[in-house]
This record gives sequence, structure tokens and C-alpha cells, in this order.
Amino acid sequence: MPHINVDENLPGIRALMAFSPETATPMGELANALLRTNEVLSMAERELIAAHVSYLNDCFYCQQSHGAIAVCYLDGNNDLVEQVKRDYVNADIPDKLKALLAIAGSVQKGGKYVTPEQIEVARKLGATDKEIHDTVLIAAAFCMFNRYVDGLAANTPTDLASYPLRAKQIAEKGYGNHIFSSKQPVPENA
Amino acid sequence: MPHINVDENLPGIRALMAFSPETATPMGELANALLRTNEVLSMAERELIAAHVSYLNDCFYCQQSHGAIAVCYLDGNNDLVEQVKRDYVNADIPDKLKALLAIAGSVQKGGKYVTPEQIEVARKLGATDKEIHDTVLIAAAFCMFNRYVDGLAANTPTDLASYPLRAKQIAEKGYGNHIFSSKQPVPENA
Repeated sequence: MPHINVDENLPGIRALMAFSPETATPMGELANALLRTNEVLSMAERELIAAHVSYLNDCFYCQQSHGAIAVCYLDGNNDLVEQVKRDYVNADIPDKLKALLAIAGSVQKGGKYVTPEQIEVARKLGATDKEIHDTVLIAAAFCMFNRYVDGLAANTPTDLASYPLRAKQIAEKGYGNHIFSSKQPVPENA
Repeated sequence: MPHINVDENLPGIRALMAFSPETATPMGELANALLRTNEVLSMAERELIAAHVSYLNDCFYCQQSHGAIAVCYLDGNNDLVEQVKRDYVNADIPDKLKALLAIAGSVQKGGKYVTPEQIEVARKLGATDKEIHDTVLIAAAFCMFNRYVDGLAANTPTDLASYPLRAKQIAEKGYGNHIFSSKQPVPENA
């Protein structure tokens, strides 16, 4: 049961955002700026970083949600997403992305865990300032989102089939006010 | 030295925000929504929570910056701010704020560390849903801001006299684009 009185029909962070629209708006805009662009990092790579950090933070709602969104961008490849979440070192992904996931994993522990050596490895594999910046900020932002969800004990659907439905909505429309104003995924012809 | 190439003349998060204005704008708006209101929690109380969490995360830049802003709102009482950062249990602050700081300290460790007992204690001392929500989100947001600053090894001024100057600017004008577009505190007659 959530620690505060929120709409029980809304899952996870959506109920919290409906409770506090004045903070929900900039949080949605931040999610869009970080996750809904293919500039330097693809939307799939960005969601993989988000899902991996949420897995490390043991946030069930966020790791399922962002894992499912990554699956949407990866032609339904759920196995790859699950492996990146749990064991990216052995996943079939580019070495540069592995180097960025290592940086994200350090950020999850705390900012000072990121080492110059990790940055150098990523650079040698072609990572730019912008890719390093966005990786650190995505990881940092999910340390916020995960704590917001679990710190208020938000409702977490245990029916795994519900996540792909909401993921499809995000994959199509991005992170916006619709995610907490609608209780069902928006119909395709809306 | 920062891990990425940013403006060396800007301190801490300001250089990172200048590097990435598209994420800086929603982050500034989130900071304003969380810290620049006296609704239920005063701006001083909000900055104290931010400074305490930044202290727990060992983020020198953020704990000095937000500590200095709290000092502005507390008639220059630097001793109180330092005590809340390090040992709020024995500080001369209301019991309700102590209960909220305990919740914030749990959020810093991870969302699941917040216990129903902590929430109950806060409620018995008069905390409302909104106060509990804002406390959790301020603490979560500073787990992001702190990791952003230290994860990119942002420049951290060691001259403690520089923090009150920038704090005064925030106390007067809030968190907005001006904090990374101006290299000096805005003159009072600007």
C-alpha cells in the first residue's frame, strides 16, 4: 500500500505524478529529453541504461516498465533486454554500450564511483562527451525515479502482461502528461 | 578535472547545465517546484532536506550550495544548518522536521529503506501526505543532482566564501536558466 493517498487505479510513478502535477511536468520533460531522442545514443540504448540502473536499484516497477519500452524499440527482443539488465557484460551489444553501462553502474552506487579509467575505456571505444554526459544523467535520473517510486511504496502491478501495453503507449507518444491522466493505454486510433 | 569538456569558469552543476540546456531546463523547473515554495514546508525546510541528503551523499558542491541557500532563509544561522547536515537529531528544529529528515535519510540509501513506522511517526507529528511526498521527492531528486555533479567530476570551488554569493542569487531569483548563463552572481540592481 502506498505511503500516501494516491489514485489506486494508476500504476507506479503515474499515481505519484497525478498526485503532484507541478513536479510531474518537469519530470516528464526530463524523461523526454533524456530518453526520447536518438542523438548519439539511440532510444533503445537509453532505455537499456534506464532498465539496467532500475534493476541495480531493485525497483521492480521501473525495471519492468523501461525494460518493456526497450523491447518495443528492439523488435520484441525480450531476452536481450533481460540479459542487459542482469549481465550486460555477456550480452550481444556493442563494446561501447558495455563501457557506458559500466559508467551507469558506478553512478548507481554514487557519483564518485565513476573512475577516469572507465571514462578512458569508453572514449577509446568511441564514446563522445555527449554520450558520457547523457549516460551519467540517465543513470542519475533513475536513481531519482526509482527512489520516488519505492520511497512512497507506489502500487506495482505484478501482472507482467500489463507492462508491454503501457510501454507501447510510451514508445508511440513519449513521456507526457497523458501517462498519468489516462488510466488505460491510449487506443491506437486516438 | 571534469570527465567531459565543460566551461571551466562555471562551478559545479552550472557547467553541466550549460553543456546540456535541453536537460537543464526541466531540472531547473523541478528544483523550483520542489524548493521554491512555502506550501506546507518552508523554503528553509526544503533546503535543509536537500543539504542533509547532499551531505549523506558526500557531494561537497551540493551540500555547500544548498546549505548556503538555507542559511539565507534562516537569517544567517550557519551553525544550525551545519548541525542539521551532520546531526539533525540534536538540532534545534521541530520534531516533525526531524521525522521528515529521517525519511529523507532512508530515501538516500534507497526507496525501500523508508518504513511504514517512519511514515507513522511523521504523521503523528502532523506531517501531511504533501509533506511526506515532497520530502521523498526532494531526497530522491538530490540523489540525482549529487550523482550528476560527482559522476561527471564537475568543478567544485574549494573557496567556501564563493558559496554564499551564489546562494544569495538563488535565494533572490530561484533556480532558472540564469544560474548557468551568468558566470557571476547577478548584481542586486540587475
